[in-house]
Amino acid sequence: MSVSPTLAPLALSIDGARLWATLMELARIGATEKGGVCRLTLTDLDRQARDRFVRWARELDCELRVDRIGNIFARRPGTDPARRAVATGSHLDTQPTGGRFDGNYGVLAGLEVLRTLKQADIRTRAPLEVCVWTNEEGSRFVPVMMGSGVYAGAFPLELALSATDREGHSVASALEAIGYAGSAPAAVADGAPAFDAYFEAHIEQGPILEAQDVVIGAVTGALGQRWYDLTVIGQEAHAGPTPMNLRRDALLVASRLVCKVNEIARGEAPHGRGTVGCLTVHPDSRNVIPGRVTLSVDFRHPDDAGLLRMDAALRAAAQAECTADGGIEVGVEQVVYFPPAAFDPVLLDSIRTGAREIGIEPLDIVSGAGHDAVYAARIAPTAMIFIPCKDGISHNEIEDALPEHVTAGANVLLHAMLARAGRA
Amino acid sequence: MSVSPTLAPLALSIDGARLWATLMELARIGATEKGGVCRLTLTDLDRQARDRFVRWARELDCELRVDRIGNIFARRPGTDPARRAVATGSHLDTQPTGGRFDGNYGVLAGLEVLRTLKQADIRTRAPLEVCVWTNEEGSRFVPVMMGSGVYAGAFPLELALSATDREGHSVASALEAIGYAGSAPAAVADGAPAFDAYFEAHIEQGPILEAQDVVIGAVTGALGQRWYDLTVIGQEAHAGPTPMNLRRDALLVASRLVCKVNEIARGEAPHGRGTVGCLTVHPDSRNVIPGRVTLSVDFRHPDDAGLLRMDAALRAAAQAECTADGGIEVGVEQVVYFPPAAFDPVLLDSIRTGAREIGIEPLDIVSGAGHDAVYAARIAPTAMIFIPCKDGISHNEIEDALPEHVTAGANVLLHAMLARAGRA
Repeated sequence: MSVSPTLAPLALSIDGARLWATLMELARIGATEKGGVCRLTLTDLDRQARDRFVRWARELDCELRVDRIGNIFARRPGTDPARRAVATGSHLDTQPTGGRFDGNYGVLAGLEVLRTLKQADIRTRAPLEVCVWTNEEGSRFVPVMMGSGVYAGAFPLELALSATDREGHSVASALEAIGYAGSAPAAVADGAPAFDAYFEAHIEQGPILEAQDVVIGAVTGALGQRWYDLTVIGQEAHAGPTPMNLRRDALLVASRLVCKVNEIARGEAPHGRGTVGCLTVHPDSRNVIPGRVTLSVDFRHPDDAGLLRMDAALRAAAQAECTADGGIEVGVEQVVYFPPAAFDPVLLDSIRTGAREIGIEPLDIVSGAGHDAVYAARIAPTAMIFIPCKDGISHNEIEDALPEHVTAGANVLLHAMLARAGRA
Repeated sequence: MSVSPTLAPLALSIDGARLWATLMELARIGATEKGGVCRLTLTDLDRQARDRFVRWARELDCELRVDRIGNIFARRPGTDPARRAVATGSHLDTQPTGGRFDGNYGVLAGLEVLRTLKQADIRTRAPLEVCVWTNEEGSRFVPVMMGSGVYAGAFPLELALSATDREGHSVASALEAIGYAGSAPAAVADGAPAFDAYFEAHIEQGPILEAQDVVIGAVTGALGQRWYDLTVIGQEAHAGPTPMNLRRDALLVASRLVCKVNEIARGEAPHGRGTVGCLTVHPDSRNVIPGRVTLSVDFRHPDDAGLLRMDAALRAAAQAECTADGGIEVGVEQVVYFPPAAFDPVLLDSIRTGAREIGIEPLDIVSGAGHDAVYAARIAPTAMIFIPCKDGISHNEIEDALPEHVTAGANVLLHAMLARAGRA
């Protein structure tokens, strides 16, 4: 293939206005009054977004492949038939009150890379693929990160297909209903093609880049997660007649545990995280001492040893609250475990290089949230590119990002993918 | 009147078996499967209980009076027409999952006193009255302690009559519907008769007597109460990507305030009480840092200065949690104030004496809960008699009391009323 002499690598750039317009066009599918997007996985709105993506990919002469869990792969062939694909992507489903960038940005940044290469008439040695992973959000069906999880063998296809939503619809029936029950193998172990590399561009969904005034984050890995359900059982009693020293107040114990969860996470700075997001009081009456409180705990840490330290500290704190006479009982049940993910050093170097090529000094950052890339890392060298989002807010209709940051992230993706795939 | 020589004051005793049987007969009206009673105020079940009481009172030749708020007064005339009544009583309404003793015991202990005197052919100089106060519980209509509150002038009759339940029925219409919209003046200020004294026997509804193995509590007063609604506003954010030092976690702040409420009350030992009974987390999602938490605070103290110390400490703690940049805001709104009540020393002495006459050493105790006696104390010398309840549990279908304690409390009431009214 010929390479235009006016498009030397350093000058090659994606079309920021085109990418932004594409993002905004996609955001109209499921747009909410408050400026966000509600496009739950495998609904008709998801079908419309998928159809739009497929149309755009066909306009680029991509080969389309849909697998049995509904993942879509748009492939731009390379010149070397022996090479595996250099892939990128993310997801098109959103939270019920989601934004315009989460997931959508990763998919459309990949599409923009292909558009840029086609327009510049650049061929790569390795093929390029843009992936649309099914049900990353997990709002309608669990497990979350379903399509990438099946692809990487984290759980079986059959488990994913049989998951049901609150109305009793299964993933399998929902895929049929929207016409995305594909026939391609859904798991690498079942013959789905592995990648040469996997990149994912994403808004940070946190406040670090914005706080440090940095445009590009080179994501070195993702925090491991341990989630728990805690139950504190005390004794309901009247708030008036019961002296303080004769109380078995479940909420007081739960409150100390909330403080302890925070303290444990602060002891694992800077990357340890500890959150109590749910807490329910029984009987929840103004003048009754709570007899039972349930609460959730979400611990995150970049390495397993750290997660285990947090686990041990939580169990010790719970045990310390239990009284010998059974007046207070605290139950601790782990309900979720995601191992920490470490991304690929070589790909990370290419991201850092790509950022510097467009004049941006990148910041190494760890992803606190799960992403499809976390599962992709199990089957291919993987890395992520973060751009800032306004006030660190995501999973919210007011989620926002600056056009220049959106452009910068896609340019870094372009350079990193091109470096990996090789110009023909 | 003649006095039977075989019934000297020290030997006079109520009939414990008769009182217990009467309590159990009344408990069948609205009996629940779990052994409790559901007899909400001004329902047809309440009418049945009232009708039963009226029938029993008529069998004793009492004069019946029903006032405009539905309070019932059964009067046994005295020999001295100049004397005001020595009154006792309580309420017949229950919580939705109430027990057999709360309120009912106070009414039927009074009835048993009249039965005992009639059987012994004892007349008193002052008339005796047994009062059935309307809507003490406040489960269906607020304000609570409605009938006694109107009688004592704590709030106007019209306010009480216009209160509505969740279905929109007013107290006035409910009184009409069950035939207890009486014509007698409902407030002392409007001409309702004041009392010479008011006694009320009640289960403790707390654990102190049982813990100290004491059968009779001489209730010296009731704790004042200040109730609050607190709102903590932080910032919702993802549990994963948000570092601990960049969080504005409303639940963490609320949890510290729960601990602080406890600490404040413990600093006012032995009678200070501090309870957070309600706490609600928004958005209550496992992996979202809570952005808003609402909680209730219930402070109680035997004197107003103590309540004001607790109030000031709460407001200081809330203020200390607010950040200068507005990242955390804590709102504190007082929603209820009941002043402390001090009961009458002379009546208390008669209760202590009555207990010792039946061989029981009484314990001075403070009521943590509100009772009709708290309002009665505004219009007459007042005191209460407490008996233990099992495990201190009340407002619960498993509420229970021992027959010998029920008997003892009624005997103390008999002796105290007789001492006050004077034998003719």
